[in-house]
Amino acid sequence: MPDDVLPQTETIRLRADGGVLYATFDAPPLNLIGPELVRDLVWLIGRLSGPTPYRAVVFDSADPDFFLPHVDLTKVPEYTAEAARAGGPGDASLGMLYQRLSRLPVVTIGRLRGRARGAGSEFLLACDVRFASREKAVLGQPEVGFGAPPGAGAVERLTRLMGTGRALEVLLGADDFTADLAERYGWINRAVPDGELDAVVDRFAHRVAGFPADAVAVTKTAVTRVSSPSDDEIRAAAVVFQHLVREGSVGPRTAWLLDNGLQTRSGTELELGEAMAAIGPDQS
Amino acid sequence: MPDDVLPQTETIRLRADGGVLYATFDAPPLNLIGPELVRDLVWLIGRLSGPTPYRAVVFDSADPDFFLPHVDLTKVPEYTAEAARAGGPGDASLGMLYQRLSRLPVVTIGRLRGRARGAGSEFLLACDVRFASREKAVLGQPEVGFGAPPGAGAVERLTRLMGTGRALEVLLGADDFTADLAERYGWINRAVPDGELDAVVDRFAHRVAGFPADAVAVTKTAVTRVSSPSDDEIRAAAVVFQHLVREGSVGPRTAWLLDNGLQTRSGTELELGEAMAAIGPDQS
Amino acid sequence: MPDDVLPQTETIRLRADGGVLYATFDAPPLNLIGPELVRDLVWLIGRLSGPTPYRAVVFDSADPDFFLPHVDLTKVPEYTAEAARAGGPGDASLGMLYQRLSRLPVVTIGRLRGRARGAGSEFLLACDVRFASREKAVLGQPEVGFGAPPGAGAVERLTRLMGTGRALEVLLGADDFTADLAERYGWINRAVPDGELDAVVDRFAHRVAGFPADAVAVTKTAVTRVSSPSDDEIRAAAVVFQHLVREGSVGPRTAWLLDNGLQTRSGTELELGEAMAAIGPDQS
Repeated sequence: MPDDVLPQTETIRLRADGGVLYATFDAPPLNLIGPELVRDLVWLIGRLSGPTPYRAVVFDSADPDFFLPHVDLTKVPEYTAEAARAGGPGDASLGMLYQRLSRLPVVTIGRLRGRARGAGSEFLLACDVRFASREKAVLGQPEVGFGAPPGAGAVERLTRLMGTGRALEVLLGADDFTADLAERYGWINRAVPDGELDAVVDRFAHRVAGFPADAVAVTKTAVTRVSSPSDDEIRAAAVVFQHLVREGSVGPRTAWLLDNGLQTRSGTELELGEAMAAIGPDQS
Repeated sequence: MPDDVLPQTETIRLRADGGVLYATFDAPPLNLIGPELVRDLVWLIGRLSGPTPYRAVVFDSADPDFFLPHVDLTKVPEYTAEAARAGGPGDASLGMLYQRLSRLPVVTIGRLRGRARGAGSEFLLACDVRFASREKAVLGQPEVGFGAPPGAGAVERLTRLMGTGRALEVLLGADDFTADLAERYGWINRAVPDGELDAVVDRFAHRVAGFPADAVAVTKTAVTRVSSPSDDEIRAAAVVFQHLVREGSVGPRTAWLLDNGLQTRSGTELELGEAMAAIGPDQS
Repeated sequence: MPDDVLPQTETIRLRADGGVLYATFDAPPLNLIGPELVRDLVWLIGRLSGPTPYRAVVFDSADPDFFLPHVDLTKVPEYTAEAARAGGPGDASLGMLYQRLSRLPVVTIGRLRGRARGAGSEFLLACDVRFASREKAVLGQPEVGFGAPPGAGAVERLTRLMGTGRALEVLLGADDFTADLAERYGWINRAVPDGELDAVVDRFAHRVAGFPADAVAVTKTAVTRVSSPSDDEIRAAAVVFQHLVREGSVGPRTAWLLDNGLQTRSGTELELGEAMAAIGPDQS
């Protein structure tokens, strides 16, 4: 990816500024994590795994309401097949794709405005650092409300970041979190006033892009060695998730939510934390 | 425990609301953790280990000043014998009883008003989540001031929740903590204004009670697997505690405190953090 | 070190108050961690490893601007040789000296005013607890900006204290942190208003000094066992650091900083976080 011929993808817009690459999710209508977005993410992660002029990547969203809302629940086999292109059929999961993301030699930075829920939050958790708009960010892991534990690293990473008590509150409650509470719990590095967020992220990204690349890569690897989920943990979580999505109560509960506006720019999707508690008991 | 014939115990009052069981400690005069309360806790944990209509349990206290102040220091052998009924003589400790609590398939929620110190704090730490009244909650691990490390999981759980520096401050300082500071340190999930505490707890309890039970149980087990003390760690802590209580300086220091109002509704018990620093040096 | 004939060292002033020893770094002009200060630290840690009337040690600085700014970069072989006197040539590193500090049977307390960066921050991290002046404390790990990962425990301890996301921000960003942000991240126990800092530290130090010494020592060991870096981790970090300092881009970047006021009471040293981003790209 030389600076002057930056390729574009269907769902991720790329822009370079010196050693910093800005990758903006732009998959209307909702930035759902579906086959196209996963395909483009596989490509981008692959490119950043090799030689690149970039030292830091900032991930953000073109949609002010949605960073990455969650996976496309109508296309689980399709996006899983795309994820498998990164690691082979034995690693056919978003979780393992995110493991590759977390091990890139470049520094990955999440800049969060709008909603990051489910595998959208798990994407952020696999980035190195996460800064969020105090006014405009919303985080959630709604999976248990659907009927399955999160399958792409949230259990493993949130527990390490915030301890068991808060991780259980987040994961079992399946509720929405403000940026302020997410900061207090350690889900994100910091909640920043929206007007200052871009400056905070740009300053950090350009600093690290200017530091010696070998020191950055060695340090990142060393931190990861102290505390991060193993591939085996992530693979096991993916197996449980994929099994429960096929067999358990996920089907009827998802169907109820889809009937009530899920995956459209609706109140259900905007206030998913509320919606999770409104699913009829006959769907449980 | 069918909903319509809810049994009662001598020291724990039970009330059901849908899938949520409210368990209220009510062991006058002080809610000391003595043989009767441990006996009732063993029974309740046993019942919740099997089939039950409840999906979430809220633990609180009938005494506005004391949640669980600490163990009855005049009846250590007696309550330990009761605890042994849960796990057998090899697991004769509150710590191992709390391990069983932490592994219940139902969600356990601490609602804290008043003082939770020593094994009272360790009870909360073995619950899944902990919410506390900002104005009325007090937490403490005074054991080191008595002359022994905590023996029922505080070392193991606090270190994982808040890191070594803050855990050492809590454990070596043997001081009282406000809810606000306890939240900043990660001891509790959140300090909530007293007027909002019930609503926060009820909302959370009823949410999780409405979610698919298998997803809740699988997720809880997965979180525990990432970060929680092993049975061997807990057994070792109990052995050290029980040895130091019998042999060390615990005797004279406890005697001094008992002479000065410990285990009565006194200033010593209300402000135990202060009292720990007032014990005469000839008792150390 | 009997109370009445307290020896003094060239760079660390000692004062006793009951069971509390106050150790004040006083190595003008800047409190750089050089051969003399390391020599005195080796001596002090050795003395505190054996029988001593002291139960708690408070470390602070005579210089209002600098607690410990960082190592003397012009004397790395010399101070390393001094550190080797503590553990033998196989453990010739500040990191291993700090491991000994972290295992002292007495309680170690950092009272931070001024700047603690690099191995100065790592010294604090090896203390049991850390309290900092809200107005006057500054923390930083600038090593990656020099071109090497920290080599004396920062990677291993910060990751355990604050989780990967925040540790990566601190370590890769090489920026200065206020006491408030350091508290939010768990780097220090607490940011305390400057006018209250001495009282908070004195209260804590005298409390723990009055508690039974065996309970304190056993508890400290137990906490350390739950979460602290192994000697092997620390040794490996020292090897990487020493290698990169000799071979990598550390040389030219350090030279640029030394030409611009590093190791003098200059703007570069006072605002090192800013200076790290100003190093010319031809030095990277």
